[in-house]
Amino acid sequence: MITSLCVSLRVNGFACKPTATVSEADFSYAGLATAGDTNSTVVGSKASAATVEKIPGLNTLGISMARVDYAPGGVNPPHTHSRATGIAFVLEGTLEVGFITTANKLISKTISAGEVFVFPRGLVHFQRNTGTTPAAALAAFNSQLPGTQSLALTLFTASPAVPEDVLEKAFQIGSNEVDKIKDRLHPK
Amino acid sequence: MITSLCVSLRVNGFACKPTATVSEADFSYAGLATAGDTNSTVVGSKASAATVEKIPGLNTLGISMARVDYAPGGVNPPHTHSRATGIAFVLEGTLEVGFITTANKLISKTISAGEVFVFPRGLVHFQRNTGTTPAAALAAFNSQLPGTQSLALTLFTASPAVPEDVLEKAFQIGSNEVDKIKDRLHPK
Amino acid sequence: MITSLCVSLRVNGFACKPTATVSEADFSYAGLATAGDTNSTVVGSKASAATVEKIPGLNTLGISMARVDYAPGGVNPPHTHSRATGIAFVLEGTLEVGFITTANKLISKTISAGEVFVFPRGLVHFQRNTGTTPAAALAAFNSQLPGTQSLALTLFTASPAVPEDVLEKAFQIGSNEVDKIKDRLHPK
Amino acid sequence: MITSLCVSLRVNGFACKPTATVSEADFSYAGLATAGDTNSTVVGSKASAATVEKIPGLNTLGISMARVDYAPGGVNPPHTHSRATGIAFVLEGTLEVGFITTANKLISKTISAGEVFVFPRGLVHFQRNTGTTPAAALAAFNSQLPGTQSLALTLFTASPAVPEDVLEKAFQIGSNEVDKIKDRLHPK
Amino acid sequence: MITSLCVSLRVNGFACKPTATVSEADFSYAGLATAGDTNSTVVGSKASAATVEKIPGLNTLGISMARVDYAPGGVNPPHTHSRATGIAFVLEGTLEVGFITTANKLISKTISAGEVFVFPRGLVHFQRNTGTTPAAALAAFNSQLPGTQSLALTLFTASPAVPEDVLEKAFQIGSNEVDKIKDRLHPK
Amino acid sequence: MITSLCVSLRVNGFACKPTATVSEADFSYAGLATAGDTNSTVVGSKASAATVEKIPGLNTLGISMARVDYAPGGVNPPHTHSRATGIAFVLEGTLEVGFITTANKLISKTISAGEVFVFPRGLVHFQRNTGTTPAAALAAFNSQLPGTQSLALTLFTASPAVPEDVLEKAFQIGSNEVDKIKDRLHPK
Repeated sequence: MITSLCVSLRVNGFACKPTATVSEADFSYAGLATAGDTNSTVVGSKASAATVEKIPGLNTLGISMARVDYAPGGVNPPHTHSRATGIAFVLEGTLEVGFITTANKLISKTISAGEVFVFPRGLVHFQRNTGTTPAAALAAFNSQLPGTQSLALTLFTASPAVPEDVLEKAFQIGSNEVDKIKDRLHPK
Repeated sequence: MITSLCVSLRVNGFACKPTATVSEADFSYAGLATAGDTNSTVVGSKASAATVEKIPGLNTLGISMARVDYAPGGVNPPHTHSRATGIAFVLEGTLEVGFITTANKLISKTISAGEVFVFPRGLVHFQRNTGTTPAAALAAFNSQLPGTQSLALTLFTASPAVPEDVLEKAFQIGSNEVDKIKDRLHPK
Repeated sequence: MITSLCVSLRVNGFACKPTATVSEADFSYAGLATAGDTNSTVVGSKASAATVEKIPGLNTLGISMARVDYAPGGVNPPHTHSRATGIAFVLEGTLEVGFITTANKLISKTISAGEVFVFPRGLVHFQRNTGTTPAAALAAFNSQLPGTQSLALTLFTASPAVPEDVLEKAFQIGSNEVDKIKDRLHPK
Repeated sequence: MITSLCVSLRVNGFACKPTATVSEADFSYAGLATAGDTNSTVVGSKASAATVEKIPGLNTLGISMARVDYAPGGVNPPHTHSRATGIAFVLEGTLEVGFITTANKLISKTISAGEVFVFPRGLVHFQRNTGTTPAAALAAFNSQLPGTQSLALTLFTASPAVPEDVLEKAFQIGSNEVDKIKDRLHPK
Repeated sequence: MITSLCVSLRVNGFACKPTATVSEADFSYAGLATAGDTNSTVVGSKASAATVEKIPGLNTLGISMARVDYAPGGVNPPHTHSRATGIAFVLEGTLEVGFITTANKLISKTISAGEVFVFPRGLVHFQRNTGTTPAAALAAFNSQLPGTQSLALTLFTASPAVPEDVLEKAFQIGSNEVDKIKDRLHPK
Repeated sequence: MITSLCVSLRVNGFACKPTATVSEADFSYAGLATAGDTNSTVVGSKASAATVEKIPGLNTLGISMARVDYAPGGVNPPHTHSRATGIAFVLEGTLEVGFITTANKLISKTISAGEVFVFPRGLVHFQRNTGTTPAAALAAFNSQLPGTQSLALTLFTASPAVPEDVLEKAFQIGSNEVDKIKDRLHPK
C-alpha cells in the first residue's frame, strides 16, 4: 500500500518511506531544547533550525521551526527566507523586531515574552535584544526548508566573491570599505 | 499603488489594506502571553489561537499559531485541523503526544520542554499532560485559519444534532449511551 | 524527452514513466463497476476507492474517485479526508448526507438519485441510506489519494491503542464504556 | 467570527458568506438528475455542469462535476479544460474515450457502465457513444470552474472571428473550406 | 546537507543534485539567441523552447521561456499550453495576437516591437506576422514545461489517429475533407 | 455568468470584471518598448515593470515581466523578489549575472544577447554590464507582482530607519560608516 506519510529516505531527493517503517522518531526533535551559544557569532545571536533536515517526517508537509537565542544587545541581522513567511513567539526577554516592505517602509515593534510577530514571505527582517538579559524566540515557517539568506554574509562572504564593483555601486562605497567589511565578516 | 501586504479590511472576505495604513499592530499579538484557564473545560486543557482573526496581517500568508495549556492530567482531546499541518513545541512540562495514520497506526511519544512534534495535515491527533505540574505547548500551523474540529464535540454536540442512528452505528452503541455522552459533553 | 505524463513507476515514491511506455491502462479502472458488499461491515456500507493506488496515471494530477454502497439503513460513518474536498453524486436510492462546520453547525440534506452534495475539505461528514432499498453514491476528491479516517475506528481501534485516558476524557465516559466500544468495533 | 466556509455572495468576485447564513442549499444541486437533450446539438451530445455557478459552496474548494449525455453515435467533440484534470465515470452505455498527449500520442479506450477514465489537465480529449443505445457519463474536475473550450467551436465560431488566414494556415485549407465549416457550425 | 536547488539528475523523474555539483551551466541557455528556421514549417513560424528540458536548474521553479520567429505572413497556429499562462514580448516586427475566452469571445490586438500581450492559462491563442519583414517574439510561461498542443496537428495528425467520426462531427465535415486536411498537415 | 477572466476592478483588492467588459487593453502593455533612463540612478541601471499594476488582466494569472537597461558599467544591485523566480533574456549587450545560494555559493556567468539565465525564487541576485555599450535584458517572473527589494536601499534608506545598531552589527561597521552609506544612497 502507498503510504500517506512521505518520510524522506534521504536518497534521490525526498522519496517516501513505507508506512510500516515510519516511527515517532521521524516526527520529533529535541535539538531546540537548549539555548544556542550566542558567543559563537560576532552578532550576539545564534539560530538553531528544526527543518526537514532534522525531522524527516516534515517532508512534503510545508512547515518547520527554529529557535534563536540572543545575548543582551545581540542582533539577528537582516535576512530573508526565500520560501516562507515566518512567525516568531518570544520565549524570554525583550526583542525589537521588524521587517521592511517592498515600499521601503519599516514595520517594527518591541515585544516581550509571549508576544508574537509576523515576517511576511521573503521580506527583509531582523530582531535585536534590547534588554539586559538573554532573550530567546521560537519561529515557525510555512516551508519544510525555508531557505535563509543573512544579507551581509551573503553579499560580502559568498564564495566565489560577489564582484567588488557590484558591492561598491550597491552601497556607494569604495574598494577599501568593501575589503574592510569582508575582513570583519570573514576573517582569514 | 497596489500593496504587497494583504492586510484584511474584514469586509467582503479578506480584501487588502493600502500599504500606507498598515502598521505593526496588524502583524503582532499579545494574546498568547498568558496561560489559558484549564479549569474552564471538562478535559483539563485550554487552547488560545493566534490566527488571521487576531492578526489581520496574516491574511494570505498561510501561517498561524496557538497556545495550549494543560492541567496535570489534562487532555487536548482528539481533533483535526482541516487545512493545516501542525508542529508543537513544549513550553513547559511533559506531554504524551500522538497522531493516527490513515493506516490506523498510532505514532506517539512523550516529550518535554523544548521538544517538538509534528502532526501531519488533517490527521487525528491529541496531547495529554502526563506530569504532575501544569504543561504548555506552542503550536504553529501552515494556514492562516487551520480549521479545528474537536471530534467528540463535533460528533455529539453539533447543532442540529448528528442523526442518532449515525452515532449508534459508528460507535456500535445504543441510544442510551449516545444520550449519556451528549449529556456529559453538552450539559443542559 | 521528458514526459508530460507523470505515471507512477511505483518505486521510490511516485516517479514518472517515459511517455513511450504509457498506455490507456494507466488511465482507466473497472473496479467501481460492481457494488461493494454491504454485508461485510457492521455499519451496512462499503466504500471502494479509485485512487492513484489503482490508477497510476492519476499521479500528480490531483483527483480521484470512490464508490460507496449502502444497505437499507446502512451508514457511512463520520469520517474525514485529510487532503481533499469531496463531492458525491447519488447513483441510486436516497441518502441523508451531512457535514459539520468548524463552528459546530450541521449542514445536512436528504438527496436522491442524480443529486450532488459537497463535503468541504477536511470536515467531518457522513451519509446514511434512509430508504428501504440499496443505495449507491459516486464521490470525487481533489487529491490523488484523499486520506480517509473513519473516526470511531481511528479513535477506538488504532494500533497501538490511543491512551484510554484520552478517550475517557474526550467522550466523558468510563473505562468500561471505552472497552465496550472497542470490543464491538474490533472484536477479538 | 470569520467563517471557514467561503460561500459566494456573487458580488465583487467570490467573497464569503457569514457561517450563520450558510445552508445546505449552498452545497447541493439537483440539475444533473435528468439527462440533457442530445437532440439540441449537431454532435449528438449534451453537457450539464455543476460548477460554482450552480453550487455557491464550491467557492475556493477546487472541485466540480458535470454530466454528459450521448445519443447513439453522439460525440462530445475534442475540447480542453483550461484549469482542470477530469475523470469520467460511465453511468450507462459504452463510450470510446481518449486524449492526446503533448507528444501527439492518442491514449484511448472503450469503456462501459461503471468504468472510469482520466483526462489529464489541459489536454485535448473527446468521447463518443459507440453503442446503439443512449449513454451517459459523470465527470469530476479539480477546479470549481474548469473552463471548457470546445475546439472546433472556439476556432470557427468565436466572436469576433479568428482571422481567416490563421485558420487557413493552421488547417492548410482554403477560404471556401473555412467558410463551409463556419456555416455548418454557426448557421445564420 | 540538503540542497535548496533542485537541479534535475534526469533519472527517475526530477530528483535533485547536491549543491556542490550545481554550476552556472544548470541555469543558463544560449539556444534562443538565433532565429528559428521559418521555412521548416508550412505555417511560416518556428518555436524554440527554453524549458526544464534545456535548463536543468528550472526544475521545481515554475517558469520557462520560448522564442518564436515568423516569416512575413507567418502564423503560429492556434494552440494551448495545458499548464501555463504565457506572456509574449515582441522582439521585432508586428504581430496580430489573440486568445479566445471560454465565453467564445476573441480578445486580439496588433502589437509591435517592445509591446507585451498576455495569454491566460490554458486558453486557445495564436499569433501572426502582419508585416512585410520577419518578426520575432519572446514568450515566458509560469511552468517549467508548459505543455503545448498545436490544435490542428493534435486533432489531425495524432498517432494513433483520432477517430474519423469524431473529427467529422466536431467540424461538421465529410470524410473526404478530413482526409484532405490530414494529407496536407501530415504528408506521407 | 461568472467570468473566467479575473481582471481587476482595482477596488477592494483584486476583484473580477465581467467578461463582457474585458478588452484587449486589459492584456497588453507598451511601456517596455523604450529603454529606461540609466542616468536617473546612481547605479547606472533602470528597471521598468510590467506587472498587474500595469496589466490588469494579469490578476490571478501568476506571471509578469520587467525590462532592465544598463549603461556601460551599470549595475542592477543585489536584490530579491520575495514571491518569484526570475528568468532573464539579454536583449542587447553583455551582462555578468549571478545569484548566491543559501549555502553562500555564487553561481554566475557572463551572457550576451539572446542568452537566458535563471534566478531561483527569493535568492539574492544581481547583473552588471561588463561591456562598453548599453545593455538591456527582459525578465519574466512567475508572480503577478514579484515584490522586489533592492538590498542596500532596503537596509540603509527604509523609513523609519532600520536601527543603526542592527546595521553596525550586521556589517561590522561603525556608526560613521553607516551614516556615510546612508548619505550616499539617500542624499538629503
